[in-house]
Amino acid sequence: MDAAPELSKSALKKAEKQAHLAAEKAAKAAKKTALPVVGGKKMDEIIGITNPKDENFSAWYQEVVLKAEMVEYYQEISGFFVLRPLSMHIWGTIRKWFSGHIEELGVEEASFPLFLSKTSLDKEKDHVDGFAPELAWVERAGDKKLDVPVAIRPTSEAVMYPYYAKWIRSHRDLPLRLNQWNSVVRWEAKQTTPFLRTREFLWQEGHTAHLTEELAGKEVLEILELYAGVYEQLLAVPVVRGWKTENEKFAGGYYTATVEGYIPSNGRGIQGATSHCLGQNFSKMFQITVEDPHNKGQHVHVWQNSWGLSTRVIGVMVMVHGDDKGLVLPPRVAQTQAIFIPVGINKNTKPEDRQKHEEQIEDMRATLKKAGVRTQSDWREGYTPAWKFNDWEMKGVPVRLEFGPKDAAKEVVSYARRDTGEKGTIPIADLAAKIPELLESIQADMYKKAEAAFREHRKKITKWEDVLPTLDEKNVVLIPFCLDGKCEDRIKELTTRVDDNREVPENQKVPSMGMKSLCIPFEQPDGDELVPGETACLNPECFSKAQKWVMFGRSY
Amino acid sequence: MDAAPELSKSALKKAEKQAHLAAEKAAKAAKKTALPVVGGKKMDEIIGITNPKDENFSAWYQEVVLKAEMVEYYQEISGFFVLRPLSMHIWGTIRKWFSGHIEELGVEEASFPLFLSKTSLDKEKDHVDGFAPELAWVERAGDKKLDVPVAIRPTSEAVMYPYYAKWIRSHRDLPLRLNQWNSVVRWEAKQTTPFLRTREFLWQEGHTAHLTEELAGKEVLEILELYAGVYEQLLAVPVVRGWKTENEKFAGGYYTATVEGYIPSNGRGIQGATSHCLGQNFSKMFQITVEDPHNKGQHVHVWQNSWGLSTRVIGVMVMVHGDDKGLVLPPRVAQTQAIFIPVGINKNTKPEDRQKHEEQIEDMRATLKKAGVRTQSDWREGYTPAWKFNDWEMKGVPVRLEFGPKDAAKEVVSYARRDTGEKGTIPIADLAAKIPELLESIQADMYKKAEAAFREHRKKITKWEDVLPTLDEKNVVLIPFCLDGKCEDRIKELTTRVDDNREVPENQKVPSMGMKSLCIPFEQPDGDELVPGETACLNPECFSKAQKWVMFGRSY
Repeated sequence: MDAAPELSKSALKKAEKQAHLAAEKAAKAAKKTALPVVGGKKMDEIIGITNPKDENFSAWYQEVVLKAEMVEYYQEISGFFVLRPLSMHIWGTIRKWFSGHIEELGVEEASFPLFLSKTSLDKEKDHVDGFAPELAWVERAGDKKLDVPVAIRPTSEAVMYPYYAKWIRSHRDLPLRLNQWNSVVRWEAKQTTPFLRTREFLWQEGHTAHLTEELAGKEVLEILELYAGVYEQLLAVPVVRGWKTENEKFAGGYYTATVEGYIPSNGRGIQGATSHCLGQNFSKMFQITVEDPHNKGQHVHVWQNSWGLSTRVIGVMVMVHGDDKGLVLPPRVAQTQAIFIPVGINKNTKPEDRQKHEEQIEDMRATLKKAGVRTQSDWREGYTPAWKFNDWEMKGVPVRLEFGPKDAAKEVVSYARRDTGEKGTIPIADLAAKIPELLESIQADMYKKAEAAFREHRKKITKWEDVLPTLDEKNVVLIPFCLDGKCEDRIKELTTRVDDNREVPENQKVPSMGMKSLCIPFEQPDGDELVPGETACLNPECFSKAQKWVMFGRSY
Repeated sequence: MDAAPELSKSALKKAEKQAHLAAEKAAKAAKKTALPVVGGKKMDEIIGITNPKDENFSAWYQEVVLKAEMVEYYQEISGFFVLRPLSMHIWGTIRKWFSGHIEELGVEEASFPLFLSKTSLDKEKDHVDGFAPELAWVERAGDKKLDVPVAIRPTSEAVMYPYYAKWIRSHRDLPLRLNQWNSVVRWEAKQTTPFLRTREFLWQEGHTAHLTEELAGKEVLEILELYAGVYEQLLAVPVVRGWKTENEKFAGGYYTATVEGYIPSNGRGIQGATSHCLGQNFSKMFQITVEDPHNKGQHVHVWQNSWGLSTRVIGVMVMVHGDDKGLVLPPRVAQTQAIFIPVGINKNTKPEDRQKHEEQIEDMRATLKKAGVRTQSDWREGYTPAWKFNDWEMKGVPVRLEFGPKDAAKEVVSYARRDTGEKGTIPIADLAAKIPELLESIQADMYKKAEAAFREHRKKITKWEDVLPTLDEKNVVLIPFCLDGKCEDRIKELTTRVDDNREVPENQKVPSMGMKSLCIPFEQPDGDELVPGETACLNPECFSKAQKWVMFGRSY
């Protein structure tokens, strides 16, 4: 399965390097700065996000995922990352949600080994060739050379399917539907980016076998809808559902369904997750057959699917929702949904008043916990409330709850929304009802905002000369397309700028990247500009007729 | 962390090889046998468990885990296994239960990379030396040689602790408590056994840092109690809680707490799971310090723990509960808790009667699902009910529910318990209440039976000459012991038989394995036979005084 489509060009690499340098510089500067002294203690440094999102997006992204404590670069080996609790909470939420749904569908969990032997790899050369440059090889254990080298799985088709051949002996053993949650290793040579392109990543990989094409096809779409659910319902990120073109489908498969996302800051498309029908290609390679129940004595090859969703989803979420203050988390996946910050308490506060204040806040937390809200309270000493506000904003916590003596007197809590900055008060007595409502409003509003941004930047184009200007305005485009692979390659070439603006300042650069096809949307645009088989393909050099509106864009 | 203590001696290896051969022979024989033809279809082969549990335990075990479809041997690379859905359901249940509890304690999830670089390994040589012969090394990715070889983690101390040093900057960052669920690789040279000793295994590894020894020590015991809970509450397996002796504690740690199990069939002890206090050993190696909050300007090294529980628990469960018919699953971890098998339906049954019968069963299943019971119904054609009974018994399903026209007429369902074979009927109207009760009774009875077996085979011994005969009667022993490491080594030697009965038939063999210390039980036996510092150590060659009753045994 392919999880990380093409990413970086030289321009992007440069930007990322700059971002790194900027972040390091900022960190050093912050350490040098003489910090204010509060209550006899030296205040810890606070470093806000230094790269504006719309000026240097790539640097902004790297700064956010680091400073919000989502990831840590693994210094020891490049291209690897530590996923910290904030990220793992999101992944855990996704895992629970998705697992529940596929279990309902009848998919079971399994766990296959980490390694592939060279011998079994040689069996299915076509499929493996694509992964060959990225395979990590173990040739030695302790001091002993292994008889046959083994590779760490880049995906598990070659690990699993020999057992499918063994276990599936009759049509009564179908469907066989297994899923596993694991990590895979693809030792990429390209520049890595947290979540989006890493040499090891967490994912789930589902592998199923069915009696007929129809049954396999039904599942492909059921799973795709769950992937769309992960984005839309959990991460508040809109996606477009569609088919991959022949050029972009899974190598060795029959067809691929996909959910495609959009990053407003740079107008690039991004593959969200893919659900593949493998057809009978692998069952022929691995000899997975059953007796045809409708045609005694005849054997048929089973129909197979594979589908995967990786931690990349977290990166897409960060890119879509984050702002210049840092991360913005959708409430449903936030480890901390509401953070209590005591205000109006200082070194002059009497101990008994302080204690009463603490008790009130902890009472409210208990109430909210009962109502299913995940809260924390920030009692760290030596930090001003303003410092704490910034810190929790950087970490993306959806709701801030301030509580001071003035609030106590009025029996209210003051709140601030992370997504909009909107502020207000809620009577303490209403907290258990109002906070869950507020969280759901935030979730819905975040989705609405992102959905509008994607919708407004998906432009139907019917004139070739409009393509580049439309891409430059950070759009993806829907164009009448003949669906031919060579034509698709040519479109990419035609939209690639040769001049890459080396001398132009970073924030005025025009991207040079050509556009590629993102998907053939299930939902085709209204209107009669495209009559399949009659309207011309948009590529001015192509003499074929258009078949479909296809979404193209610059992309990750 | 150490997960797989010493296993196999030559005698055991031979037994395992024999088991393998027997299983293969049986499988071949079964394939050759002309199978009865039912309803025009050839009946599939059924192969029951061919090795009696009390005659060739090791062969029995391997047959059960294979035929019950818990594991599959990974043909491609020896020492690796596929965990099939039945096993993964158990592991998933444990994961959910344990995760919920540690989250309550404040432990968070993280995910660290699969690899260690050679450079960071060299840093903490002492700890790593023990794992060195088992490390799998990656030296090449694709066609490129890596600049620095990387090893696959055998455990993650060396991966994680550099980041603990980075993240812990003040006592306010304590406690830091992270856990990860992953797989680790230890390329063992010894004979492997499914679940108990495998070259890759699934586990959780918790790594925490605390300000004081006391806080660390409190957690060691909290976690140990959760490990005991996994065994006792989920797997219905009794364990003894205790400390490891100096010889048996985690290398590089301060002290180790453990839960120890017991396999009645061969009288061997088995380490269940361990919770280690690492003391300040690793924080000194990795320079993890904070300013002492009670002593300004002074830095203190943090106190660390690590604790792990692996898929080994599943193997222990199989060994304790299984019988000559196959697996016996505790209801709380069984993927299928009750299996409906239609009876009295055959090719002469009118289609409308058959349909009505199906509907009735599916109605009952829906009722049970609502009551939280996991059920399946077996509508496979071409198999007799008797065949199906055997098949589900082999897979360990706790309750069989038979339903035929006679039951329908009486508005009852007939049931049979897997653990005891007890049979009876339950009125259909009472199913939703009675089946959950029945499952809980089975769970409790399975634990009681196993607990009695362990209790009756834990013998207090005060005369050295009683030791060997007591071990030979499949007991573990509690002996007055001085706690000295050299004395412990000598006890192992003194209890090892030199003559290994090569010529004696398999089922009459006397084990040659010496006994080793299992744990110093928290709960010391009653009675005045041991007065610490006065009573002599049981080892006749030892001149020291006994300090504690220590549990010794032949062990895995």
